[in-house]
Amino acid sequence: MSDKRIVSGMRPTGKLHLGHFHGVLANWRELQEAYECFFFAADWHSLTTEYDNTAAIRQNTREMVLDWLAFGVDPAKSTVFLQSHVPQHAELNLILSMITPVSWLERNPTYKEMQENLATKDLSTFGFLGYPVLMASDIIVYKAAKVPVGHDQLPHLEITREIARRFNYLYREVFPEPAALLTETPKVLGLDGRKMSKSYGNAIYLSESADETRKKVMTMVTDTQRVRRSDPGEPDRCVAFSLNRLYIPNEKKAEIYEGCRSAAIGCVECKKLQAEYLVETLAPFRARREELTVHPSLVDDIIEAGSARASAVAAETMAEVRDAIQL
Amino acid sequence: MSDKRIVSGMRPTGKLHLGHFHGVLANWRELQEAYECFFFAADWHSLTTEYDNTAAIRQNTREMVLDWLAFGVDPAKSTVFLQSHVPQHAELNLILSMITPVSWLERNPTYKEMQENLATKDLSTFGFLGYPVLMASDIIVYKAAKVPVGHDQLPHLEITREIARRFNYLYREVFPEPAALLTETPKVLGLDGRKMSKSYGNAIYLSESADETRKKVMTMVTDTQRVRRSDPGEPDRCVAFSLNRLYIPNEKKAEIYEGCRSAAIGCVECKKLQAEYLVETLAPFRARREELTVHPSLVDDIIEAGSARASAVAAETMAEVRDAIQL
Repeated sequence: MSDKRIVSGMRPTGKLHLGHFHGVLANWRELQEAYECFFFAADWHSLTTEYDNTAAIRQNTREMVLDWLAFGVDPAKSTVFLQSHVPQHAELNLILSMITPVSWLERNPTYKEMQENLATKDLSTFGFLGYPVLMASDIIVYKAAKVPVGHDQLPHLEITREIARRFNYLYREVFPEPAALLTETPKVLGLDGRKMSKSYGNAIYLSESADETRKKVMTMVTDTQRVRRSDPGEPDRCVAFSLNRLYIPNEKKAEIYEGCRSAAIGCVECKKLQAEYLVETLAPFRARREELTVHPSLVDDIIEAGSARASAVAAETMAEVRDAIQL
Repeated sequence: MSDKRIVSGMRPTGKLHLGHFHGVLANWRELQEAYECFFFAADWHSLTTEYDNTAAIRQNTREMVLDWLAFGVDPAKSTVFLQSHVPQHAELNLILSMITPVSWLERNPTYKEMQENLATKDLSTFGFLGYPVLMASDIIVYKAAKVPVGHDQLPHLEITREIARRFNYLYREVFPEPAALLTETPKVLGLDGRKMSKSYGNAIYLSESADETRKKVMTMVTDTQRVRRSDPGEPDRCVAFSLNRLYIPNEKKAEIYEGCRSAAIGCVECKKLQAEYLVETLAPFRARREELTVHPSLVDDIIEAGSARASAVAAETMAEVRDAIQL
């Protein structure tokens, strides 16, 4: 066990947006400086809900990993890999399934919840019921010391810890119990003022062009109580500002507060200004993404090299697992 | 798909006895002449019921495969392998779990039945519920055309066929639906006249010595209605004869009928005679087993070579599977 090892995965749902940039990716960028990180695209997990709609998984995976690499994940520091390219996850999943009571999975609070939320899908599959077992495998096959999670994911991590404990109890101490590394992620608002989300259609994507981003910012609602150009406004009521303040230097923010509240600057002009800071912040990442796209094999090569590295670590664990079970 | 391909597995429960010799092994010996056979030791399946008692699995596997090889399975004709050495079974198991409704597994008639029969064990695990998925993977990963089964196993094979159909329907035609090759196995009686079974403690093991076998035959009940040596007996009521008739040439059987019914031969003498035919029949197999045991690496080498061959075939199927799902 390395007490500096972290595992974190993301389902390949497609291109990432600013919510991911400030959430997961900002977190990963920071973690990779202090930990030995394993970041993976959880394509097998996609099958738990998307088994009947798999056409986009491969492309979504590529786009997502491109976003990771362009927006700060460094494959020289972190192991970036694809879950389905590391068969040890499946092997450990099978073995852990043998020691995991069905009741642990049925009492998983998100199980019923997701079935209700996704009521139009048939989620009564064996794999959907068992996804906490697969998740446990993903984590403990690397003997991770810590897992970055939000509060809502704590019950899953608890099942992982229980499964690891049960294995250690039945056979011998092989797995450390991974600890939660609780991470606060800022709530990033989308174009309509709701939480930014692909499904709300209110997202600014990392991979879109500067012009697309500019256009989107211009569609954002400002302070709805500022009816006329000559009315003084309140930036703290402005949806555009709530998003863009993340990109505007402090002294400029003060100017905007000042200009808006004194009606010295109009909303259109103000949003144009705001958009430039956003676009400017994203520019070097987007340029890097462009570069990566120019060499189509580069991402595949990084995934392959990372998967080989991950597989080598996972293979060591599996040798111990087989030995502990005496298979 | 090869329409001549057969897959059959056995859980490593330990040394095999005469029931296996006349049942599975006789069947396998015959099948390997006409089909491309994949015979495997299902050590992962052992975990479904023996997850808390794994110490013997490795040794049991070795002993069982030794029995296979000594008693007629020819690794030059058939692929003899160990399930846990072919990771593709686990990978396909994971993928098939995503498309298998839990209800198919819950309605599996042997599920509740085994839980009741093995009530002292905690069989409420996810892996136990899912063993028909693993079984389906074992079979279709080789695109088997046929599976030798007894009547009692038909429901399992039906689940395998359903899972294969569902995969083909959701993605594309990858898996043939394996057909049942219904096999009648003779009921072999044990020392006490009940069906021969390890758990009844009434078995004659393939790997025991000729003397052990002789001693066991001498303990068998004969015709209980023949009280005195001078009473005429009835071989069709004799437990010893019911077993040993399988080894006695027809002309000798006629002599025994004659001798018993006319009280010309006593039971002790008769059983000694019977035992010799049994011992003689088993002798060449036991000698072969002895040879195999002398070179301890031989069985391991055969398992390794077979597992590599199986893995190569399974890898081809998995490439198709990933392609069909577009992973």
